[in-house]
Amino acid sequence: MRTVKLTLEYDGTDFSGWQFQLNARTVQGVLESALRELLQQELTVFGAGRTDAGVHARGQVAHFLTTNAMGLRDLQKSLNALLPADVVVRCVEEVDEKFHARYSALWRSYRYTISQEPIALGRMYAWFWSQRLDEELMGQCARMILGEHDFQAFSKVETEVKHFRCTVRLAEWKRTDSSLTFDIEANRFLYGMVRALVGTMVEIGRRYRPLDDFQRIMDSRDRRQAGMAAPPGGLVLEKVSYR
Amino acid sequence: MRTVKLTLEYDGTDFSGWQFQLNARTVQGVLESALRELLQQELTVFGAGRTDAGVHARGQVAHFLTTNAMGLRDLQKSLNALLPADVVVRCVEEVDEKFHARYSALWRSYRYTISQEPIALGRMYAWFWSQRLDEELMGQCARMILGEHDFQAFSKVETEVKHFRCTVRLAEWKRTDSSLTFDIEANRFLYGMVRALVGTMVEIGRRYRPLDDFQRIMDSRDRRQAGMAAPPGGLVLEKVSYR
Repeated sequence: MRTVKLTLEYDGTDFSGWQFQLNARTVQGVLESALRELLQQELTVFGAGRTDAGVHARGQVAHFLTTNAMGLRDLQKSLNALLPADVVVRCVEEVDEKFHARYSALWRSYRYTISQEPIALGRMYAWFWSQRLDEELMGQCARMILGEHDFQAFSKVETEVKHFRCTVRLAEWKRTDSSLTFDIEANRFLYGMVRALVGTMVEIGRRYRPLDDFQRIMDSRDRRQAGMAAPPGGLVLEKVSYR
Repeated sequence: MRTVKLTLEYDGTDFSGWQFQLNARTVQGVLESALRELLQQELTVFGAGRTDAGVHARGQVAHFLTTNAMGLRDLQKSLNALLPADVVVRCVEEVDEKFHARYSALWRSYRYTISQEPIALGRMYAWFWSQRLDEELMGQCARMILGEHDFQAFSKVETEVKHFRCTVRLAEWKRTDSSLTFDIEANRFLYGMVRALVGTMVEIGRRYRPLDDFQRIMDSRDRRQAGMAAPPGGLVLEKVSYR
């Protein structure tokens, strides 16, 4: 049995997220169909993270098991030919049988993009927010989440997880021309976490809430205290890192 | 009567080009509808260049005449609110009555992007071409078109124009990571010209034709001698310059 690791780019616009659903178009669903057709076997694709509907990926990682002996280059070529245009396999590797896309992942990084001017080209990859945003205040929020913290206040209700602690090793806002980007890297992310963080930081950056609120929200562990979730289109899963 | 100049960005993917057509979604059509609704008058929007179906713009220019006294900022805001998400008005100015978006234009610049790796994000803005391309050969073609030349060999059959001479003041291929971009600036462009030039240069860059063919094609003034047109999605009208 071979364990095959895939590195994937996808445009989430027309997907109902990563995770398989019976009556919806999902990235996992589309991948599993293509692989079953190509390898002529039943299989499951395990992803490093379940991106929400509308969220994109430049470096999602997934793995599956197969007995098929097809060469890796052929596999990549054939898979890209079978997949729809909004999913691309960027890399195919054979890995140790102990590898698991989700459980072996050490760090995941996401980027969120806000455009401060209306855009037509690439509008599905940014949140258009025309009002002024104080990136200094937003940067202070970002620094507050560095290290290990409980992020329950920024998580959608989810019964699957045992705890809400995440270790954030990068959290940074940058301004470039007319857009603001937020880069965040952590060992794990809770459901809806980046979008809730961005939505809350924007409420502070637009001075709708005082900066002090941010720590208060974190401490509350109550999702209702945080701001609204930023729209999914601005979010890209950039990279998943392994040992 | 006021003459109003618009600078426009649009995503050409879902448009049948710039020019108004009775039963198709065009940029001119969408703009005229929005302006008629907003200004409550009949009017025509004149564009600097008629981009083909699927071609994008970051800096298309257009003008129209109106007796409406609405302020320019209000006009821009209301227009952007009325327009669909794939067209954005980036700038609104009141200009001299002698201004004509098409006839006053001095230079137009386009960029064509080729991606050498398959991409999902932004795939509608690039032509995916996986085979090797010799950018040195393509650069030599680009240098051959600098100055004034007859481009009939690179023009779709068009009865409207009196001659096929264009003056090219910039024509350059650049490689960045996994993509190649072609920047071209000229006083005028014939119908389908950039896409025919790119398609032909790619045939030379992939060594399907010898470099000598390029000059021969130019001299033939015969469209059938040139290569196939590159797909529209890779092309963006970047800028139109006036005195």
